Amino acid sequence: MTHKQPTIKDVIAARRYVYQYLSPTPLYHYPTLNEIVGTRVWIKHENHLPIGAFKVRGGINLAANLTAEEKNNGLFTASTGNHGQSIAYAARTYGIKATIAVPEGANPGKIAAMRGLGAEVLIHGADFDEAREWISLIAANKKGKFVSPTDELLIHGVGTYALEILETLPSVDAIIVPVGAGSGVCATGIVAKAINKDIEIIAVQSAQAPAMKLSWESGMMLEAEMKTIAEGLATRVPFENTQRMMRQYVDDFILVDDADIKSAVKTLLEHTHNLVEEAAAAPLAAALKIQDRLRDKQVVLVMSGGNISIQNLSDAITS
Amino acid sequence: MTHKQPTIKDVIAARRYVYQYLSPTPLYHYPTLNEIVGTRVWIKHENHLPIGAFKVRGGINLAANLTAEEKNNGLFTASTGNHGQSIAYAARTYGIKATIAVPEGANPGKIAAMRGLGAEVLIHGADFDEAREWISLIAANKKGKFVSPTDELLIHGVGTYALEILETLPSVDAIIVPVGAGSGVCATGIVAKAINKDIEIIAVQSAQAPAMKLSWESGMMLEAEMKTIAEGLATRVPFENTQRMMRQYVDDFILVDDADIKSAVKTLLEHTHNLVEEAAAAPLAAALKIQDRLRDKQVVLVMSGGNISIQNLSDAITS
Repeated sequence: MTHKQPTIKDVIAARRYVYQYLSPTPLYHYPTLNEIVGTRVWIKHENHLPIGAFKVRGGINLAANLTAEEKNNGLFTASTGNHGQSIAYAARTYGIKATIAVPEGANPGKIAAMRGLGAEVLIHGADFDEAREWISLIAANKKGKFVSPTDELLIHGVGTYALEILETLPSVDAIIVPVGAGSGVCATGIVAKAINKDIEIIAVQSAQAPAMKLSWESGMMLEAEMKTIAEGLATRVPFENTQRMMRQYVDDFILVDDADIKSAVKTLLEHTHNLVEEAAAAPLAAALKIQDRLRDKQVVLVMSGGNISIQNLSDAITS
Repeated sequence: MTHKQPTIKDVIAARRYVYQYLSPTPLYHYPTLNEIVGTRVWIKHENHLPIGAFKVRGGINLAANLTAEEKNNGLFTASTGNHGQSIAYAARTYGIKATIAVPEGANPGKIAAMRGLGAEVLIHGADFDEAREWISLIAANKKGKFVSPTDELLIHGVGTYALEILETLPSVDAIIVPVGAGSGVCATGIVAKAINKDIEIIAVQSAQAPAMKLSWESGMMLEAEMKTIAEGLATRVPFENTQRMMRQYVDDFILVDDADIKSAVKTLLEHTHNLVEEAAAAPLAAALKIQDRLRDKQVVLVMSGGNISIQNLSDAITS
């Protein structure tokens, strides 16, 4: 099966479905945060969406584009976090059954949230990749649609946040985006580069889970050790389709240590009074790391989500 | 000086100014929170506004309605928190000078935020009332406008959130609102009762700062001991104009202990993944206290703001 690569046209087409159920999120400016970063910084508040994360935009667009047969047979996916909540939310919105595999030891709060949204949650496998293989076989068996976290319909939907950034701040110079599977950064690149190719797209991942960065840099598909505390950045096996797009759209890829991510969680709590999950704090950690070359630029940090556990929040604010 | 009492007409008139600078906030539903409260609960996310609190709606409306002379002479107010940020934000938006008195020992984060918004912040007096008396004399001396936290133009602006609630959930049965000076609950009552007089307006204050409740109940202006940790509920001296309106619009007034407010902060963090200040958690604490009589009702909890300090956040999640 060959895919044509997503374009801004696909993102524009997704808007009508996304805005049927969701509202644009704010892009806010915090004076005290500017001082810390040493340049003009805006936060894109994807944590203000329902489910508290950008991924819900993709889920809505995917569900809206299903065939009658796909709707009837239901959606199947694997997730340790926000992707599963996005599919559960979209499925409930469109009256579709969702079955979500989560690995053993997954965050009970997220399981409860997915079940609360009406999804069937099955616990299987030692990690995300095991859960994913297992549920994709079940999906095939039941003729249901298996949804990859990098499905292009998800990327089209997610891109609507990048359009909102460009509409609110057309003069943006750089956008810093956290990378897990890569749907967010690809969607941002597709939109921003189509409007102004000089906008710098900066990806960020944890140094404790660098598979996507190493693959992007080398041009090969490289697995890497995955030990980050940041669920949203916890990719061990890179995704091919997003890697292909990232080579085209990403200008720079920064690795930040988990310790700096934790510290950024605390800084964002203090200066924006928003709850952020670790992945959503990684763009600030990256901005602080490359502070010198951001000076005099207008920089957007994508606050991708707020779904941090109480335990991790407690660690971040007391460390 | 006599005031005619605000009506829904004033709130509708404020919309055009408020929406010039602010967007409506979401009203979200969290399945796991419904289970905890035992009925259908919606959260009105006023914490998603710039400055992280509902009060900015009032500040914008007030600044929009100033005369040229008032704009020229500047705004003067006293605040320990969100009111000051609202006036600073509105003044910056309209290019007006703001001078804000804060009592000694005020939260340095909030002082930095007000200064970041361009306000002049002066530290004076042992508490809010001392700071207020002092700054109102300075305002008179400089022929500037002193802004009371219960100025009716603020109430008109704040009421726009109540209109949003009614538009999104016309079938709402009860709205629970935290009370500091009372502008939020009065604005909510004015709007809700005009649309459907059967909507129950439930006020909530801390048992450790019951002046507004005792005054409402007795029909007299009663001061009371003020020892709450919830800055947004910390009223020692009741406000006359809001008391007058509350007697007309408020159906019930619940006191909750600070300990229950802290616990509600943690519950909201876990189940909505939003950072909340103590005042914004008080409606959940109240809902849990009167759980039996809310059963089968559609209840809105007003999440008035997110400006909690790291110290208080840490206390709430570890207690």
